[in-house]
Amino acid sequence: MSAVSSPVVVTLPDGSKREYPGPVTPAEVAASIGAGLAKAALAATVNGKPADLQVPIDASADLSIITTKSKEALELIRHSTAHLMAQAIKRLHPEAMLEDGPATEDGFFYDIWTEKPIAIEEFPAIEAEMGKLAKESLPITRRVLTRAEAIALFTARKEKYKIEIIARLPEDATITIYEQGDFLDLCRGPHVPHTGWLKAFKLMTVSGAYWKGDATLDQLTRVRGTAFATKEELDAHLTLLEEAKKRDHRRVGREMGLFMHHEWAPGETFWLPKGRKLYRVLGNMMSNLWEDEGYQEVFTPMLFKSDLFKTSGHWDHYQDNMFIIRQNEGGDNPVEYSLKPMNCPSHMLIFRSERRSYRELPMRIADQGVLHRNEASGTLSGLTRVRQFCQDDAHIFLTPEQIEPEITALISLVRRVYKPFGLEFAKVFLSTRPENYLGRKEQWDAAEDGLRRALENNKMEYQVNEGDGAFYGPKIDFIVSDALKREWQTATIQLDYQLPQRFELSYVDADGSEKTPVVVHRAIFGSLERFLGVLIEHYAGWLPVWLAPEQVRVLTISERSEPYAREVFEMLSRARVRVAADLSAEKIGSKIRGARIERVPYMVVIGEKEAAERMVAIRARGEDAGTMTLEAFLQRIEAEKATEF
Amino acid sequence: MSAVSSPVVVTLPDGSKREYPGPVTPAEVAASIGAGLAKAALAATVNGKPADLQVPIDASADLSIITTKSKEALELIRHSTAHLMAQAIKRLHPEAMLEDGPATEDGFFYDIWTEKPIAIEEFPAIEAEMGKLAKESLPITRRVLTRAEAIALFTARKEKYKIEIIARLPEDATITIYEQGDFLDLCRGPHVPHTGWLKAFKLMTVSGAYWKGDATLDQLTRVRGTAFATKEELDAHLTLLEEAKKRDHRRVGREMGLFMHHEWAPGETFWLPKGRKLYRVLGNMMSNLWEDEGYQEVFTPMLFKSDLFKTSGHWDHYQDNMFIIRQNEGGDNPVEYSLKPMNCPSHMLIFRSERRSYRELPMRIADQGVLHRNEASGTLSGLTRVRQFCQDDAHIFLTPEQIEPEITALISLVRRVYKPFGLEFAKVFLSTRPENYLGRKEQWDAAEDGLRRALENNKMEYQVNEGDGAFYGPKIDFIVSDALKREWQTATIQLDYQLPQRFELSYVDADGSEKTPVVVHRAIFGSLERFLGVLIEHYAGWLPVWLAPEQVRVLTISERSEPYAREVFEMLSRARVRVAADLSAEKIGSKIRGARIERVPYMVVIGEKEAAERMVAIRARGEDAGTMTLEAFLQRIEAEKATEF
Repeated sequence: MSAVSSPVVVTLPDGSKREYPGPVTPAEVAASIGAGLAKAALAATVNGKPADLQVPIDASADLSIITTKSKEALELIRHSTAHLMAQAIKRLHPEAMLEDGPATEDGFFYDIWTEKPIAIEEFPAIEAEMGKLAKESLPITRRVLTRAEAIALFTARKEKYKIEIIARLPEDATITIYEQGDFLDLCRGPHVPHTGWLKAFKLMTVSGAYWKGDATLDQLTRVRGTAFATKEELDAHLTLLEEAKKRDHRRVGREMGLFMHHEWAPGETFWLPKGRKLYRVLGNMMSNLWEDEGYQEVFTPMLFKSDLFKTSGHWDHYQDNMFIIRQNEGGDNPVEYSLKPMNCPSHMLIFRSERRSYRELPMRIADQGVLHRNEASGTLSGLTRVRQFCQDDAHIFLTPEQIEPEITALISLVRRVYKPFGLEFAKVFLSTRPENYLGRKEQWDAAEDGLRRALENNKMEYQVNEGDGAFYGPKIDFIVSDALKREWQTATIQLDYQLPQRFELSYVDADGSEKTPVVVHRAIFGSLERFLGVLIEHYAGWLPVWLAPEQVRVLTISERSEPYAREVFEMLSRARVRVAADLSAEKIGSKIRGARIERVPYMVVIGEKEAAERMVAIRARGEDAGTMTLEAFLQRIEAEKATEF
Repeated sequence: MSAVSSPVVVTLPDGSKREYPGPVTPAEVAASIGAGLAKAALAATVNGKPADLQVPIDASADLSIITTKSKEALELIRHSTAHLMAQAIKRLHPEAMLEDGPATEDGFFYDIWTEKPIAIEEFPAIEAEMGKLAKESLPITRRVLTRAEAIALFTARKEKYKIEIIARLPEDATITIYEQGDFLDLCRGPHVPHTGWLKAFKLMTVSGAYWKGDATLDQLTRVRGTAFATKEELDAHLTLLEEAKKRDHRRVGREMGLFMHHEWAPGETFWLPKGRKLYRVLGNMMSNLWEDEGYQEVFTPMLFKSDLFKTSGHWDHYQDNMFIIRQNEGGDNPVEYSLKPMNCPSHMLIFRSERRSYRELPMRIADQGVLHRNEASGTLSGLTRVRQFCQDDAHIFLTPEQIEPEITALISLVRRVYKPFGLEFAKVFLSTRPENYLGRKEQWDAAEDGLRRALENNKMEYQVNEGDGAFYGPKIDFIVSDALKREWQTATIQLDYQLPQRFELSYVDADGSEKTPVVVHRAIFGSLERFLGVLIEHYAGWLPVWLAPEQVRVLTISERSEPYAREVFEMLSRARVRVAADLSAEKIGSKIRGARIERVPYMVVIGEKEAAERMVAIRARGEDAGTMTLEAFLQRIEAEKATEF
């Protein structure tokens, strides 16, 4: 600290300025604004960087006070809660040695060595101890140490991992520790002012973690938890997690009998009979839509010589994601083939196979071909991280003038397709010219203008990601949010000026000159596999009638009602309802449970009473929905079947 | 020849025996039977081997006389016609040197060197010369030479290729030449008695052929021709060839806009929009049939670790036909994957994925998964020799008792499916236990009995191929004949006792014991690609309405009839007819030509007259079919759409 202080001017988020005679702490700034803010203050942001309330600012700066309402609050609370947990564990395991304990996207963790690894059974005790410490509202204070002091301190406390961390710090690093009661930790901070802020936490999981990731070194326990500013937010989060777990498409898909996986085909799906039907219903709906919208659906080969991908550029830029086959076919060198990772190059070949006229544009080529991408086996999961999949993929060949009207229609189509699924657009991004762009700047400007106007024509709210386009053209990405408000990137519309050039595509324009078309890559669902995974979780398996692979199941209470049940089954079947019958000798309760687990939207329960009265007792999504005539039920089903996009 | 001859006994095909005092020629035997046979005789079969009429038999033997009615006649006539052609060419090109000239499946060829390569333009002259020589009825005689004599003879005649052939013959080979008039040729024979038998021939093509297949040696011309016993048979054959050429699915498919191929994806099909639709119509029909017949359709992965194929046995026995991917996934050895060449192994995994009960059997698992087989690139052609395809493939898991009833139903299904295509069963083969069979003999006997009874239950004519079954079980193969009487192997039903054992499959029987199921491999179309190729040729592209990707095209004569044409189009479209409209400004003649080339079964031509009278002028398969009301036309279409299997 200098002997003579100069005045410090603080600029607040609303632009107002406050002058202080010398160094001032954010806590003092907050207090000078008002007692309420001082009380609510957790930390501050100084010149865009998080800072403790108690650390003085000695030069003029932008400053904002972080309260529980600020977007920075969550990370701060979680980081401080990691310390709180470490303190509690050290009380219960005095021999414990701490490694690293950061905040994460979902909460926090701390890697800790204890003589006997921490088990999940200890969570209640640890949480109780954390609760006690929080109630004590211990002040959390920051101290700056020299390297020697720090090493001496942690050596005395037998914290060998901390010493190792200090050794890795740059020579000129400021070494700080944070203290609360009997606990102290090496940490950059900042932290909340006292432990009283840390009241809404929950420990989640334990897992093994090697020190420095090295299996020959000490084995630590990674204890994960989460924390929020309030109990209400924590409860909402835990409910969401619980709900997400119940909806996990891997579990629900197994219960519904949709698919299976096998270690001999990692990342590929065995579609079981009902899953096959679901997959086909979705695929056929897209094919019908394509037909209505003037697309031409093709089906292209899966295995191509490397020449194709050398022409498209994938060989140089995407080879790591491709499955390569090298084989001797009698020439001097092995012939290289690859499973196609995307459909675009083969659609370029189709465009190129004939002389094209401007009259054929826009030419929309669609494909549900099977794609393979060589994802690392460790990352594969269910339907959402796969190696084999198919997209609702299309490529549109356009004149430059057609960009705006075509993209306008396309955005409108995207909205129309998502509507019946009840998936909202959470975010729409327009990504523009990056630094390493190819092509002419005027071309890019015109293209970006076209996309912008297409979004505005659709009154679509969107954000611009400046410079985030692909090198070959600008794009629009759609992010939807599901029933649990989780976000999924799905539809995409990308302009491409490069591929048509690489494949030397051309069309004859009205004036007889040869021109190069623009290509649009577009997918609405994206991968069908992934989209079905999202839908299963979004609906918790209770797919809408128009999508359900089995729409109705007819259940008999006893064999005496079998003839009428068969009649009902036949009538539904003739009405093109996807219906199954369970006429087995099982008890009706067990039959209903079975159909509920398989998420059959409608059950028709037939007992002697229904047979005598020629009525049907309906269960909708497992719940009693009353007794009605078969005609009334058919009308209800028809209405729900008609909700297709 | 020995000085003292002993009697020679000749056994004829009807089992009767004739005794001759000493060596006797087949010609003499024929004469001794009757003058008619002697006149009709072309050659003989002696102890199962073809022989000349004039070569004496000096020991007792089985003998039959070959006449134009015999199955051996065609090869004989074609081989002799190859000599006739060579003689004619030598007359026209005295410098000509002959290499080899055998009979082939379709006719014959001769590889010949001439100073100026023989061109197709010379065919009339060569054929005229051949006709003259045939009219002369020159006797064809056989002479045995020593090696030295043969070399001297061909050296004198400057036939250097013949000398080379003699040099390659084994030391103890009998060297024979055949002479007719001024011509002689090195040949094993036999031949017809004189050139008068060679009256029905036609030269077909020329192509280049290197001597000994070596591009550094002399270039010869391969002249191909065909020959028959009678002019009528030749004409029928040429008509068939002409018709087959017109129907070639590669040409017709291109005209119809069904598919394309590209050198970067050898043996794989790009299904263009109409072809995609056709492929899907056929695939969906099979899926619907499966559903009706109690099959469960699945869709299984394409890429499997080698473990799967090691378990199934394909890795050891079929690897050459598989596309193999080897890649490093972090372990010690590269991980080997293969594209599946067939669906069976993955269906075994599905059966094995749950504990199965006898109540679930027969379990029928069907799949239209995409298969890849590594066929040599030189053999690939159109849709019939491909690398990527899909089958209407199913595997049925059975108890042994279920074999007969299930196969009985299956054969009946095969008949039902082929009926609407007008494809007849030319041959049905039951192939039985081979020498290298696996499993128990009693099991085989029971299985073969089951198949036999299933065929008889269907009153199906069949032939038994003794010992021709696969090592894993007996099978039934169906060969159909198309509109040109050409035969195609299509449906197959194979029993398999091995795969269930290799995958350790089991089900719990009624008595609680674990048993191994029997598996049936079955396909009705076989490969969808190949079947579509056959259908296109069978129908010459004029697919039946229920199969045609575009069933109706509406054509306007002028823009004045456009509103009514749109109305007609909408009505057809609502009636689920696959309809397109050509409202372009082209002349009506050109529009009709276009629809005819694309083989659209029905055209609806709309002029002002039709619009005024609210009628439609119909063209069926390109031909005028009168004017009618739209209702009448819809009825006609509906009736033809209903012909699905």
